[in-house]
Amino acid sequence: MKIYEYAQAPNCRRVRMFLAEKGIEGVEFVPVDIARGENRTDDYRRKDFNGKVPVLELDDGTTIAESVAIKRYLEELYPEQPLFGRDAKERARVEMWNRRAEFNLMVNVGMCFQHTTGFFADRMTTFPEYGEECGRKALAFFDELDRHLADNRYLAGDYYSVADIGMVCALDFGKVVNLRPSADKHPHLKRWRDELNERPSARA
Amino acid sequence: MKIYEYAQAPNCRRVRMFLAEKGIEGVEFVPVDIARGENRTDDYRRKDFNGKVPVLELDDGTTIAESVAIKRYLEELYPEQPLFGRDAKERARVEMWNRRAEFNLMVNVGMCFQHTTGFFADRMTTFPEYGEECGRKALAFFDELDRHLADNRYLAGDYYSVADIGMVCALDFGKVVNLRPSADKHPHLKRWRDELNERPSARA
Repeated sequence: MKIYEYAQAPNCRRVRMFLAEKGIEGVEFVPVDIARGENRTDDYRRKDFNGKVPVLELDDGTTIAESVAIKRYLEELYPEQPLFGRDAKERARVEMWNRRAEFNLMVNVGMCFQHTTGFFADRMTTFPEYGEECGRKALAFFDELDRHLADNRYLAGDYYSVADIGMVCALDFGKVVNLRPSADKHPHLKRWRDELNERPSARA
Repeated sequence: MKIYEYAQAPNCRRVRMFLAEKGIEGVEFVPVDIARGENRTDDYRRKDFNGKVPVLELDDGTTIAESVAIKRYLEELYPEQPLFGRDAKERARVEMWNRRAEFNLMVNVGMCFQHTTGFFADRMTTFPEYGEECGRKALAFFDELDRHLADNRYLAGDYYSVADIGMVCALDFGKVVNLRPSADKHPHLKRWRDELNERPSARA
């Protein structure tokens, strides 16, 4: 198995943290420099027409795009230490929080990054004011997250899951556009983030 | 079980089509008028702090937000006629295409709707030019979709899945902002859509 990736991209980090938590080894990583547009070649688009990273390529040539699809596939191959939940209700809670990690945080952080920094200005139209509004929405979500983590060790309760991985990758990526929780206002969010950062997977 | 929903919302239709395809009956539907802001009360936000529809409420009071989390939960309760895939590779393909239904189409259609029509102007800042750009991205995606459906009966191959449900709900919702595939340019997309619309679930 190969994973095409750009190490700095948050969705690539999600997959690497997942592999580290599950102790999956032997996956070959192939760097794709998205800053230089290596993901926009015809060859790469045959792996994923969206030209996104990461992409998992199986030994039979099958390609699977989308980080969550990659993680679900690997969860089935390596069912030990499940990270998508241990029963139906927990799996639903994990899915709900993983989607909140994406739609409440990652989308807003990502749009703030794309529309205010101009990192991809060679390949998209930017709307800086829209990007700033997305940044404000991400900041407002930190309050909600702090309230939830006051009563919950992890996002899905007492169980570390892919939702925590997704949320912390989005949160850490927010630093690039100066979106940071406040130590005063978000003590529970800080406690959770510190706890996650102590796990070896945080450096994956 | 109860499902809080707003019948016109595409994510609510996704859940109803899913229930119809699987033949699940006996779920109580509770209408929530999001146009009038019934989803923004403290009471509703206790079910989902995002105030989104649909929300599934179990008999023990547990609430599950996010349409995909609801569908996954119901898939486990009613495993007959699986709609998330039948083996690991197919499940990965379904997940990948379900996410493309969301990120390539639903997000763009939704942003076009929210930012150009002002439907939620009482509760959000709108950026009409951004909305128009999202509409253009949705239209460009129809070409990609048409190419894929030239060689595939359904999105995940020869197998009808939640990805088809998600994509057709996003596609049909696009009519609201006049985003329609072209009969000339997108014959395969039209063939697929017609086939889906002939299933009883399309009227759910």
